[in-house]
Amino acid sequence: MVVKVYGAPFPHPKRVLVCLAEKEIEFEMIFVDLFKQEHHTPKFLKLQPFRYVPIIQDGDYTLYESRAIIRYYAKKYRSQGTDLLGKTMEEEGLVNQWLEVEATRFHPPVFHLVTQIMFGPEFGIERSEKVVKENEEALGKVLDVYEDRLSKSKYLAGDFFSLADLAHLPFGENLVGPCGKEYMIKERKHVSAWWDDISSRPSWKKVNEACKTLE
Amino acid sequence: MVVKVYGAPFPHPKRVLVCLAEKEIEFEMIFVDLFKQEHHTPKFLKLQPFRYVPIIQDGDYTLYESRAIIRYYAKKYRSQGTDLLGKTMEEEGLVNQWLEVEATRFHPPVFHLVTQIMFGPEFGIERSEKVVKENEEALGKVLDVYEDRLSKSKYLAGDFFSLADLAHLPFGENLVGPCGKEYMIKERKHVSAWWDDISSRPSWKKVNEACKTLE
Repeated sequence: MVVKVYGAPFPHPKRVLVCLAEKEIEFEMIFVDLFKQEHHTPKFLKLQPFRYVPIIQDGDYTLYESRAIIRYYAKKYRSQGTDLLGKTMEEEGLVNQWLEVEATRFHPPVFHLVTQIMFGPEFGIERSEKVVKENEEALGKVLDVYEDRLSKSKYLAGDFFSLADLAHLPFGENLVGPCGKEYMIKERKHVSAWWDDISSRPSWKKVNEACKTLE
Repeated sequence: MVVKVYGAPFPHPKRVLVCLAEKEIEFEMIFVDLFKQEHHTPKFLKLQPFRYVPIIQDGDYTLYESRAIIRYYAKKYRSQGTDLLGKTMEEEGLVNQWLEVEATRFHPPVFHLVTQIMFGPEFGIERSEKVVKENEEALGKVLDVYEDRLSKSKYLAGDFFSLADLAHLPFGENLVGPCGKEYMIKERKHVSAWWDDISSRPSWKKVNEACKTLE
């Protein structure tokens, strides 16, 4: 069964796509043109009442929220492709812990930087140097904790690549690329090695190639 | 084995406590006095580098982030106490979806309201009527989606009580109580019935009783 992914070549849908690629699951992208407000149509709202992408349809099963979707596929196809949950219940606990850290500590400041620097002009948001500075400082403190953690284990949840690492890829890419904040990764030795490792995975390259056809 | 929960009678630790109560797991609360900055000590930072409670210690296993901890115990003791994950992988997917909704759609506006109305004076934050109004409006839109959802199923993830419902209890209680925003729940028929149901569970009463001894 080919999984339908409703989305656009934006970070949250890409979090799902890279998981599907790691799990060797075939997917088809259903393009939702956010600029044409296609996520506000009655048809879309039936699938996702909060008006966000991505959504997946897998047969008659529908699921939204990218981090819920990746948990579902990591479990459903546990023995296919890369194991993204660790080997024990305790390792899976740490995967979930670092997924929460990604969502609640890493994501908010990066999202503010992306909004201010990348999308501000497009959506008429006036750039505030104060907001940029505050979020850069907040992110720096989070990355200091990552540096310490990654000096002790190769990946966030332990010595195995997992959902917790994978979840950082889409917004991490915006941070080091279009946001011009690569130095925040590079100046931290272990974070930098971790980033080089996870961002050079074939799954991530495959997703970026697939997204190019949608841009 | 008695689970040690580092925390205080605050919402995030209470999310863990109510899960442990539902799973009939014995716990011991290790009080962390946040007003005395006990979460900034080197001993604490070894357990939780981001300086937040709760943390659990279960034998030699340490875990933080409340939503990761509740996922861990719901799975580890699946057949003990209340089943909080649903019966199938698809139901568990929906539990995770609504847990993400709680964390990323419900929690942020409620947190702002709690900060402004309950803790603003204590921490020297000047109350802004604009911030209160914006977050009340944002929360209203989220609760409209809940109302529609809860008109179709008794609980958020389906016709079974789960982690997704339980996770709303601590901040929900602040919203209807000290924040004075009970009307937001009461004016929505299905949300109101759902709230009455989940907030009258014996587990929640037990947690509130246990916390009284710490206040």
